[in-house]
Amino acid sequence: MTSVNYQSLVEKLSEVSYLNGVMSTLGWDQEVVMPIGASEARAQQISALAGVIHERMTDPRLGDCLAELEAEDSAYFDTLQICNIREARRKYDLETKIPKKLVKEMAGLSSQGHTVWVAARRDNKFSDFAPLLKRFIELKKEWAQCAFPGMDHYDANIDNFERGTTMADITPVFERIKAELIPLIQSIQDTRYQPDNSFLQGTFPVDKQEALARKISKDIGFQFDCGRMDVSVHPFCGGSHPTDVRITTRYQENDFIESLYAVIHETGHGLYEQGRMLEGRDLPVSESLTMGIHESQSLFWERMIAQSELFCRHYFDTIKATFPDNLQDATADVFYRAINTCKADFIRVEADELTYPLHIILRYEIEKGLFDDSIAVDDLPEVWNDLMMKYLGIKPPTDTLGVLQDSHWSSGAFGYFPSYTLGAIYACQFYQTMTNELSDVEKNIEKGSFAPIKAWLNEKIHRQGSLFTPHDLVCRVTGESLNPEYFIEYLKKKYSAIYPLGLE
Amino acid sequence: MTSVNYQSLVEKLSEVSYLNGVMSTLGWDQEVVMPIGASEARAQQISALAGVIHERMTDPRLGDCLAELEAEDSAYFDTLQICNIREARRKYDLETKIPKKLVKEMAGLSSQGHTVWVAARRDNKFSDFAPLLKRFIELKKEWAQCAFPGMDHYDANIDNFERGTTMADITPVFERIKAELIPLIQSIQDTRYQPDNSFLQGTFPVDKQEALARKISKDIGFQFDCGRMDVSVHPFCGGSHPTDVRITTRYQENDFIESLYAVIHETGHGLYEQGRMLEGRDLPVSESLTMGIHESQSLFWERMIAQSELFCRHYFDTIKATFPDNLQDATADVFYRAINTCKADFIRVEADELTYPLHIILRYEIEKGLFDDSIAVDDLPEVWNDLMMKYLGIKPPTDTLGVLQDSHWSSGAFGYFPSYTLGAIYACQFYQTMTNELSDVEKNIEKGSFAPIKAWLNEKIHRQGSLFTPHDLVCRVTGESLNPEYFIEYLKKKYSAIYPLGLE
Repeated sequence: MTSVNYQSLVEKLSEVSYLNGVMSTLGWDQEVVMPIGASEARAQQISALAGVIHERMTDPRLGDCLAELEAEDSAYFDTLQICNIREARRKYDLETKIPKKLVKEMAGLSSQGHTVWVAARRDNKFSDFAPLLKRFIELKKEWAQCAFPGMDHYDANIDNFERGTTMADITPVFERIKAELIPLIQSIQDTRYQPDNSFLQGTFPVDKQEALARKISKDIGFQFDCGRMDVSVHPFCGGSHPTDVRITTRYQENDFIESLYAVIHETGHGLYEQGRMLEGRDLPVSESLTMGIHESQSLFWERMIAQSELFCRHYFDTIKATFPDNLQDATADVFYRAINTCKADFIRVEADELTYPLHIILRYEIEKGLFDDSIAVDDLPEVWNDLMMKYLGIKPPTDTLGVLQDSHWSSGAFGYFPSYTLGAIYACQFYQTMTNELSDVEKNIEKGSFAPIKAWLNEKIHRQGSLFTPHDLVCRVTGESLNPEYFIEYLKKKYSAIYPLGLE
Repeated sequence: MTSVNYQSLVEKLSEVSYLNGVMSTLGWDQEVVMPIGASEARAQQISALAGVIHERMTDPRLGDCLAELEAEDSAYFDTLQICNIREARRKYDLETKIPKKLVKEMAGLSSQGHTVWVAARRDNKFSDFAPLLKRFIELKKEWAQCAFPGMDHYDANIDNFERGTTMADITPVFERIKAELIPLIQSIQDTRYQPDNSFLQGTFPVDKQEALARKISKDIGFQFDCGRMDVSVHPFCGGSHPTDVRITTRYQENDFIESLYAVIHETGHGLYEQGRMLEGRDLPVSESLTMGIHESQSLFWERMIAQSELFCRHYFDTIKATFPDNLQDATADVFYRAINTCKADFIRVEADELTYPLHIILRYEIEKGLFDDSIAVDDLPEVWNDLMMKYLGIKPPTDTLGVLQDSHWSSGAFGYFPSYTLGAIYACQFYQTMTNELSDVEKNIEKGSFAPIKAWLNEKIHRQGSLFTPHDLVCRVTGESLNPEYFIEYLKKKYSAIYPLGLE
């Protein structure tokens, strides 16, 4: 028997979930189809809806309902119900514990921040951005104090994106990665060798790119009756519900690899959303867990599967048939090497899987320093460039190509960056366990039989929703906590075979 | 100086307007892009948002605010403000005066009604639909009693779509139309002549249809930076704001006339929305007036402009260049005649401009009879077929092609049908006034210069928003009230030139 209070909680949470679905539709619409002239009206519509959602999420009747449920004997509740109560409490507290004045100042600074950052980046003038950044760090410390009293301020900001994960977990993992990858990248640079990728230059008609990407997304398991694929300026995965998952990509006539792998990446996110548990679909328990776990799913398909030799072997004939003029002299092996080149460069979002973690670690160390006051905002350009030289052996010629490249800090998103690399590590660890548990994984990839792989991820990760923290989920799935050794081993083995490192 | 109460009213009404904009985006999304698997989730999202909007529109604080404003000296308010207060009162009363029990039963019956109607139409079985229809008429009488106490029940239902217009206005107008059009259609049938339209059969590539329709919509004045054009099952004009107006059409490879004229029709609706006054865009004063006035704008462009000889003459070369194989032997004059054929047939939505009013008058007379109890629901199939024979000289072979063809009654939309023909009459009356006031209207159509025509409609109708009733608006624009003689004269003159009636 379900308690009256619990029934009331379900109604309240479902309403918020429906309204959040509406908000997601507005977001997709704005990025994909909205006419340019509508931006002012859309901002007002979003603000009105956000006001309603905030009102519902901070409704004192929700607080009372939670307090009464927490006073009931928890033996009456099943695992899913306990999770819903716990998640509802977490969200209610996060919404109600922050003083309105602080919420307002953060919102104002975030919107102002974007404009200031765009101009500073354009003008290569960090000093124009510095005052705003300083203020945001102060506000985010205040926020941490209110949201997670007693917790270290940077840990609290990390918790916001990757709950239950702290610097104590991350720092040693990132140290191991630095210790192994910095010399690995160095030795790759020393070979002065690069795989031939000349055949990836040329003209690739957009309609053919689109058809190829759609086919591969479908092969992998994206359900187009519960989703869509469209075009937007930045690829993303959105949508309003597990039955309405919308991925996007962007096409350039002279590069089909970017659009194709963006689609595969977003398909990985999409499979997570489409694979959510069937019970409680409109309740927190079924929701995807964290940024890092979400990224583990997109990177699983993008890197572990689609950048593998076996995947390239399976699809090479299809790709060659799609672009026959360009790829006539290439082979599957040459294609595999061409899409897996390693090159230290300035911009994070363009980095390969080997150099990417160092872009992240640099940002993590800087954020840590900003929060424990060991780094001053005004010194950031110098600190940034020194770390780039230390980790990747290159120095950005401008701050536009350095400390000003990312938008995250302009909206106050501190503690977000680590999730990208945590995702990459999780992906590798999950892949390792999967190959132990399932037979024929490699054969299946080579055959293009992705259903067993998708089913494994559905069961082990997607259907677990928000039942566990990332730490507990990884332990349950892989039998151990976050372990960077699989990731390191994977990269060493893979790149030793591509570059003449003399390690084998 | 704006009163505090008025400022509060503006805030409340703006919020409702923003949320209604969100609702419209959901509606467009559902018809145009939503994946099929999302329909259940979308229904829940729409229901949650509708609940919020209803809550805001029936908020007692809105009622108090209105009462206080109505107690203030109206001399302090300008015309726009007075209109906003009046419209807000009308909507508030309509939302709050209907007992919850009745609202709920009507909503339930409407959703059930659609399913029952679809099945009855498919099975050609009116008796399956009759009980529901009976109940809906009872409920709509009750609704009328609550919404407009003291008003005739059918007049109240008409008022819901065409405020201020009653049977006393409509009946004599429809009688005049019957008196003139029934014999006119009869004499056309007697000629046994039909213009050649063989060249409109064939294959017309959809991408070319789309490009042609988009060009003409743009030429007419649709602003694509504040709107879109897409594909849906039934053409419509939606969107969330005057800066976000979205028209749709549907394409068939073997018929480009349908898609083209649907686009022009929806462009007419779209120009009304895009042309709304710049002040108070998120308040009732700026909103489009009624169904009938909206239809007058779509029909103005579809019929008065785009089905004219001059328009055909201007665009014929473009159309011929678009489909050269099909139209090589045709001329502008032949094209004009081909798209203006008159043929009595069973289905309203496929009817030409000459027979269309009789489809409407038939429905109007039946609705009148259902509400004054002079017609019994069980007799409807017979009454319908008798009137079809009397007005158009044909008898539907099945109820599927007769009384069961329209969805309106299944959702309780009584009093809606007259708006279609009121719109056609308004359109003709507006056109007449425009040619009196503007020089060179015909020359401009022939040149494809639509800007002065659009500007006139913008000023005379679109920017008037909800300031006046349809009756007052028509009087202000044309100097007289609804007058069917222009419509009758237009049809007689036009069709006498196309068919050999010997009237000229």
